[in-house]
Amino acid sequence: MTGDVLPSWNDGPARAAILDFVARVTTEGGADFMPPAERIATFDNDGTLWCEQPVQIQVFFAQARLAELAEKDPGMRERQPFKAFLEHDFKTIHDLGKQAVFEMAFATHAGVTTEEFARIATDWFATARHPRLDRLFAHCTYQPQIELLDYLRANRFKTFIVSGGGIDLMRNVTERIYGIPPEQVIGSSVKLRFEMRDGRAVLVKESELNSFDDREVKPANIGLHIGRRPILAFGNSDGDLAMLRYAKTGEGPRLALLIHHDDAEREFAYDRDFRLSPLAEALDKADEYGITLVSMKRDWKTVFVN
Amino acid sequence: MTGDVLPSWNDGPARAAILDFVARVTTEGGADFMPPAERIATFDNDGTLWCEQPVQIQVFFAQARLAELAEKDPGMRERQPFKAFLEHDFKTIHDLGKQAVFEMAFATHAGVTTEEFARIATDWFATARHPRLDRLFAHCTYQPQIELLDYLRANRFKTFIVSGGGIDLMRNVTERIYGIPPEQVIGSSVKLRFEMRDGRAVLVKESELNSFDDREVKPANIGLHIGRRPILAFGNSDGDLAMLRYAKTGEGPRLALLIHHDDAEREFAYDRDFRLSPLAEALDKADEYGITLVSMKRDWKTVFVN
Repeated sequence: MTGDVLPSWNDGPARAAILDFVARVTTEGGADFMPPAERIATFDNDGTLWCEQPVQIQVFFAQARLAELAEKDPGMRERQPFKAFLEHDFKTIHDLGKQAVFEMAFATHAGVTTEEFARIATDWFATARHPRLDRLFAHCTYQPQIELLDYLRANRFKTFIVSGGGIDLMRNVTERIYGIPPEQVIGSSVKLRFEMRDGRAVLVKESELNSFDDREVKPANIGLHIGRRPILAFGNSDGDLAMLRYAKTGEGPRLALLIHHDDAEREFAYDRDFRLSPLAEALDKADEYGITLVSMKRDWKTVFVN
Repeated sequence: MTGDVLPSWNDGPARAAILDFVARVTTEGGADFMPPAERIATFDNDGTLWCEQPVQIQVFFAQARLAELAEKDPGMRERQPFKAFLEHDFKTIHDLGKQAVFEMAFATHAGVTTEEFARIATDWFATARHPRLDRLFAHCTYQPQIELLDYLRANRFKTFIVSGGGIDLMRNVTERIYGIPPEQVIGSSVKLRFEMRDGRAVLVKESELNSFDDREVKPANIGLHIGRRPILAFGNSDGDLAMLRYAKTGEGPRLALLIHHDDAEREFAYDRDFRLSPLAEALDKADEYGITLVSMKRDWKTVFVN
């Protein structure tokens, strides 16, 4: 019977751990049964649900936005960090680090309303392509993970994204590409200012950071947005470790999963040295913390969606 | 057919406006049809879903907590604002204003984990009774609103709470009393700190305010938590006006509703002079802003749940 589910996952310990866990929490009367309301599953996005190489999709989006802004202000082309973005100088971008890069990206939309931003994002996702994978960014998602999200929801899990990526950029596509509605997406955010414009209430994105949703902030934002401890969490970097441990150390059945990008042929192979989102501590301590490692190379039959 | 729904609502303009709105947005092929994903409805809590007199239920909870703390530190009984709380001196509490009172209430749980807090709240709700209504606080909810929430969900609306009340206190009961799960509750909050305690990850409530979810902050928090503009919003005070206008001024069909507490006999009669949550501007401008007034006296057949 389990041959029908998760068809893009190879038989092996990772797939078995998922199937076993879902069977246990959904078996009524069983020792590990969890009512549907408690079946909260949280997923990182960059590197967990879609590709984050050579830089996060957020960064490509910021590059496109900066290119537009630079048409009005050509001097930007000579100023850092804009210069690095505009020249796709990934080395310099990596050196800046994830929070600095993302904050810069968020700042390019200060003064824009959430609805204007949604139009900008929709337009960009409609045509922008990943430079190395030669596919739309919205199609840089992992097929095995789409199947896992569907499988969990079929078993009455509620699936959430908890990502360092900008909350509004993700929300523009998550329902379409993952089946996850905007209200189940948690991410980094800037402050929003309520304003009446020509008799119409709008929310304006400010330049001030509200939350950088990474590391210890992830479980804190789960507390704020969800208010329940997840029973399953899935990540791929040290930025997810606090969330994985928050899920794993709750009472009752728990499953924490970590993708290891070890597949240079079909995707990318990286861990400790990826400065925008390193995987080191979580990899070294996975056993000790009870985290199930997923090897992209070994555990996934296919990588990207068709 | 419509006689079956909203049985605790009297026939009249408010009930008719609700039925008409729901019929329009759910009629496939109609000009005002909205897909289920867009059917977001946001409700204030204090004074909209449950009673907020003579003070918000949050304040009674804080009183109980302070009484416990005062057993260890009797000097608190002589210090303001604790003295006013411990003596149930509502006049002084009203003079402090809602934000000051709520912040004080939140501060009584600094250092407590979210799970410890949940146990404290569960214990309190199990036995604490409203002093004037002589019923459990968890039963101080309005029957017509419970019916409205059910009716909206039956029509594939997703119902949210957006309240100035403390997010964790509400989440302790909202699923049980309103059918609204924790992840659909937005409220005031303190910052949460991730911590490992004896190998177990916990979230600790800090004394620092994260968000006081009132007035212009309500739509901003809707932007953060939901990421979609509600098509229906329901409130009862000036603290809800920004949310009502945010819902009402979106494109397409919209419904904004405002309860007027004008029923001294069955509940309480108050508006402009209730300093903890006045209703003045929203009442004066309801017509201009297209907000539908609900008179508790005229529109509700019954007030409280059985």
